[in-house]
Amino acid sequence: MIYPNEFKDLMDAFKNLPGIGDKSAERYVYAIDSLDEETVKKFADSLLDFKKNIKKCSICGHLTNQDVCPICSLNSNRDNSTICVVEDSKSVFMFEKTGKYNGLYHVLGGLISPIDEVNPEDINISTLINDRINEDVKEVIIALNPSVEGEMTSLYIQKLLEPKNIKVSRLSYGLPVGADIEYLDPLTIIRAIDDRKFLS
Amino acid sequence: MIYPNEFKDLMDAFKNLPGIGDKSAERYVYAIDSLDEETVKKFADSLLDFKKNIKKCSICGHLTNQDVCPICSLNSNRDNSTICVVEDSKSVFMFEKTGKYNGLYHVLGGLISPIDEVNPEDINISTLINDRINEDVKEVIIALNPSVEGEMTSLYIQKLLEPKNIKVSRLSYGLPVGADIEYLDPLTIIRAIDDRKFLS
Repeated sequence: MIYPNEFKDLMDAFKNLPGIGDKSAERYVYAIDSLDEETVKKFADSLLDFKKNIKKCSICGHLTNQDVCPICSLNSNRDNSTICVVEDSKSVFMFEKTGKYNGLYHVLGGLISPIDEVNPEDINISTLINDRINEDVKEVIIALNPSVEGEMTSLYIQKLLEPKNIKVSRLSYGLPVGADIEYLDPLTIIRAIDDRKFLS
Repeated sequence: MIYPNEFKDLMDAFKNLPGIGDKSAERYVYAIDSLDEETVKKFADSLLDFKKNIKKCSICGHLTNQDVCPICSLNSNRDNSTICVVEDSKSVFMFEKTGKYNGLYHVLGGLISPIDEVNPEDINISTLINDRINEDVKEVIIALNPSVEGEMTSLYIQKLLEPKNIKVSRLSYGLPVGADIEYLDPLTIIRAIDDRKFLS
């Protein structure tokens, strides 16, 4: 009643986004009101273009606007002896930003979680095992969050890779750079001791 | 380089909104990725529909999808002897939500602010004085923020209304409901004393 329809509809649209309630949605609608028509047109187009053109890489599952992502593509000069297993595309972008990893990725699209009824067959594990592990692959790096679901998924993948006779590793646990040991939780300290690196 | 073009473009679009930087924009893009096509289409449409159909009421300046907003329209049964002067449409929606005010509004679309080079002629003051003050109007309530700009604008309007011989009021300053006096700033307390209400 109070808001014009178009105002209410745009508020509702913004409320599809995570963490946006009535207040923020209203604020964004005022922001849209103050943008010029050209910019709003581009905003709308970019929503449609994203949805139309961005899909999962047919090899690794990473978000891409091509059939095969630039990392998996044959002329990418990546080291195809290493596959890094990650939960989602977010992780791929994070790793790529470091500029230090030159291997391939495999995006699971989730983690095994019986409570949320996510079973191994619901995530992208079978293609990893059946399609991607060939004689070129020497190592699989498991790079999942150190959560219950992450550990569960990691163990599951480890089991399936056992008969394949390739190296399986995981990211080390330990102190985040810049952290103050005083403020770390005991579990992280235990993990940092377990994963300690011998210097001599 | 790292993000596909459509991903980057949509991030940039979200960054047009207030308070949204790289991190939040990226998060919203993932949210768009997980929404179904129908919902994203509606999102894009609602942006375009808002921009196309929402304009300023030709009488009061409030946001509306008609030529004259529902509050100003002749069949609104509003009390046209009172005009409440507000900074923007946000205030109108806030007042309407209370459901207690039955008069009309006048939206200035800003406040006088010499520092930001906003002069009286840059905001919607002249139409208030020249077009809206007629023999029906008995009172003008000034409902602007208690800031330097708000007070300046309020004084300016007061001056212009002086020869018109109508009642001019402003919102009272004082304690916000639920506030603890202990934590209020001294200026609010001074204002609450100045605007005190006599009970007998």
